[in-house]
Amino acid sequence: MKRFLLLACLSLGLSARAADHALVIQTDFGTKDGAVAAMKGVAVGVDPHLPIFDLSQENTPYDIWEAAYRLKQSAPYWPAGTVFVSVIDPGVGTARASVVLQTKNGQFFVGPDNGTWTLVAEELGIAAVRRIDEKTNRRAGSEKSYTFHGRDIYAYTGARLASGTITFEQVGPLLPPAVVSLPYQKPALEKGVLHGTIPMIDFHYGNVWTNIPDTLFNALKPAYGDKFTVVILHNGKEAYRGVIPYVHTFGDVPEGAPLLYLNSLMNVAVALNMGNFSEKYGLASGGDWTTRIERAK
Amino acid sequence: MKRFLLLACLSLGLSARAADHALVIQTDFGTKDGAVAAMKGVAVGVDPHLPIFDLSQENTPYDIWEAAYRLKQSAPYWPAGTVFVSVIDPGVGTARASVVLQTKNGQFFVGPDNGTWTLVAEELGIAAVRRIDEKTNRRAGSEKSYTFHGRDIYAYTGARLASGTITFEQVGPLLPPAVVSLPYQKPALEKGVLHGTIPMIDFHYGNVWTNIPDTLFNALKPAYGDKFTVVILHNGKEAYRGVIPYVHTFGDVPEGAPLLYLNSLMNVAVALNMGNFSEKYGLASGGDWTTRIERAK
Amino acid sequence: MKRFLLLACLSLGLSARAADHALVIQTDFGTKDGAVAAMKGVAVGVDPHLPIFDLSQENTPYDIWEAAYRLKQSAPYWPAGTVFVSVIDPGVGTARASVVLQTKNGQFFVGPDNGTWTLVAEELGIAAVRRIDEKTNRRAGSEKSYTFHGRDIYAYTGARLASGTITFEQVGPLLPPAVVSLPYQKPALEKGVLHGTIPMIDFHYGNVWTNIPDTLFNALKPAYGDKFTVVILHNGKEAYRGVIPYVHTFGDVPEGAPLLYLNSLMNVAVALNMGNFSEKYGLASGGDWTTRIERAK
Repeated sequence: MKRFLLLACLSLGLSARAADHALVIQTDFGTKDGAVAAMKGVAVGVDPHLPIFDLSQENTPYDIWEAAYRLKQSAPYWPAGTVFVSVIDPGVGTARASVVLQTKNGQFFVGPDNGTWTLVAEELGIAAVRRIDEKTNRRAGSEKSYTFHGRDIYAYTGARLASGTITFEQVGPLLPPAVVSLPYQKPALEKGVLHGTIPMIDFHYGNVWTNIPDTLFNALKPAYGDKFTVVILHNGKEAYRGVIPYVHTFGDVPEGAPLLYLNSLMNVAVALNMGNFSEKYGLASGGDWTTRIERAK
Repeated sequence: MKRFLLLACLSLGLSARAADHALVIQTDFGTKDGAVAAMKGVAVGVDPHLPIFDLSQENTPYDIWEAAYRLKQSAPYWPAGTVFVSVIDPGVGTARASVVLQTKNGQFFVGPDNGTWTLVAEELGIAAVRRIDEKTNRRAGSEKSYTFHGRDIYAYTGARLASGTITFEQVGPLLPPAVVSLPYQKPALEKGVLHGTIPMIDFHYGNVWTNIPDTLFNALKPAYGDKFTVVILHNGKEAYRGVIPYVHTFGDVPEGAPLLYLNSLMNVAVALNMGNFSEKYGLASGGDWTTRIERAK
Repeated sequence: MKRFLLLACLSLGLSARAADHALVIQTDFGTKDGAVAAMKGVAVGVDPHLPIFDLSQENTPYDIWEAAYRLKQSAPYWPAGTVFVSVIDPGVGTARASVVLQTKNGQFFVGPDNGTWTLVAEELGIAAVRRIDEKTNRRAGSEKSYTFHGRDIYAYTGARLASGTITFEQVGPLLPPAVVSLPYQKPALEKGVLHGTIPMIDFHYGNVWTNIPDTLFNALKPAYGDKFTVVILHNGKEAYRGVIPYVHTFGDVPEGAPLLYLNSLMNVAVALNMGNFSEKYGLASGGDWTTRIERAK
């Protein structure tokens, strides 16, 4: 029995800890402020040992597309059960719904249903959507406050969900399994020309990412060293045109030279080796930036 | 007995973890540096599982007022037992006292007594103040160093207090229950005019916060849609004057229009919907920025 | 037996937790991005309760020297067993080796062997170096990706090492106990003149740090108040010359005046009290910035 008890103790000890899933927070509040710390304080008040992480607090203010893309870029690398709280919320205080999206990989996304879920819903699949019942899922004492849902409702609900204090069912009533989606050019191949969007600049280095996946690109049967004509358009008007070699790695071209490569999401991207492509050519990202890529003639 | 033992084990396992309170760090060292990481390393050396959080490391260098405000903005949302370490310390190496302030809500504030505690002392109430005994509460091997109290004394003492390694009594001798306080215009209502300070710009969006609480504002019996004359002064000289509607939420005015609202601390604030009020009118914050608000005539 | 069992349970509970060492991450990815969050997600997938910290994600892109210096500045303050992952990797995808350096103080450094380990290898001493076997130490499903070793190999291997999932031996084969080292002017004293490098600007305040340690400086038998001639050179050309008093603390000189002091690493540094020395005189840091310091005549 001694051995049994020891095992039981150990297993209880571990399961007490294993109940915690990570809480990952994204906002446009910046780090030079106390707002994110207030959110984390609320979460620690729910569970002192909850593992809490920043996705980014430096999102461009009000930029829902960027928020959607950051989630797509990072969520797939977190384990099932992870709870993401995203507060890029230009409509705070208006009638937009506060929801929790459960994706098919068992992750949860907590925040306003304003388009932020566009890309994770597509990529990970919608398992269910629940409206947050703000009567039961609200920080005690916050009834008067209506401008900081990130702290009073989303961080609180996210922490309770991640810590197992409430179940997904206790979030609130089921909604139809759909979320608000932002429009954008889906990747496509037509007559040998790849069409896509510039969803994001890898701003730190200025690399220009497209949403064209390797699977589509491979239909052109590219080999390293092959050259491609890349056109980038803003609202349909040409902003960049160039012929760029497809390479395995940045060092395959001279310093300052352009290259076409597959980025860390296995999407087509263009860059300058040790340089800043987007700055040099004045390019940005979003639904109004599109691209056309084909074999150079 | 089996059940008893299991429960005992579980409870022991949980209480072993529950001894840790959160350590929350604020500095003006920036995140592009190794100094904050050195502080956290010292804290992890005290207790490898201490939950450690950033309030902000991006405080304006030497700006004690801003540090005081960040604490006021976030501390009330953290649980009792939380230990805050604040190192905005233009006087490092001089004779200012190193203290731990215990507030009436059971939180602790560790750092130089240079005005940083002004607002939490007022808002949370002073329970006790102790001078840090730097002979016993100092990182081993740090005797030669005298310029980095944040790492050698404050992070070390904060971590030992948060982890239960020392008690509050072991910090050092009791001081009189008072802290150094920065002067500023307290909120007041005189003959129908609200007077206050601009303690902070919500810099990310440019919203201008006052220190006038809803309780004082409510004496004017405001209804949504009512208009108020807002005057903002720098060293007593008018910097902004305008008539602004009091609204429930940003979306209640057109894009670019001004609004008066209650912010997340339930203080009166003014903003532009989807715009930057402080930038547009060249406003900043601090003890030398004051405001007068009254019903528009 | 009851007491024995309780103690055993407690000890098991604690040892289950104590297996975790801290994982400390440094990159040049910035915090306005999802890349660091993807790395942390991989680490949390390895061990949900791994204590994970940022050294800095704001390193100057591609600046290996700065990365080396940040590690030297902070690693000594972390406990034995701490695992540092450093991804400042201009050569990602090229043939540079991916290694784990074990230092003599029992810490581990995971990343590309491109000069990043220069200073910690010197200061902490090399215990052993192993090449990462990328067949066994690679995130499942990442075989196609070759541009994000930080996420797919370094964060994954670092987390497995910190959590005790693998031993140091399981990292991969032993290499000769040496790392790639960046060249720089070592501190030296010749005929009463101290020679050194400007390894870093304490950029937030503009203080100019040298790599001249107190032990060498003390050979000049300095007393507080003594004056020193400080010359700073860029590629051998004089960029600053001035006579500066050696003081105990910033407040010992008037606001705006220069001072010479020992910084938090006990190296000689110069600063302006409440001012920005490097900005005022246009100084920067790196192997091409050197200094000469001697007693003023």
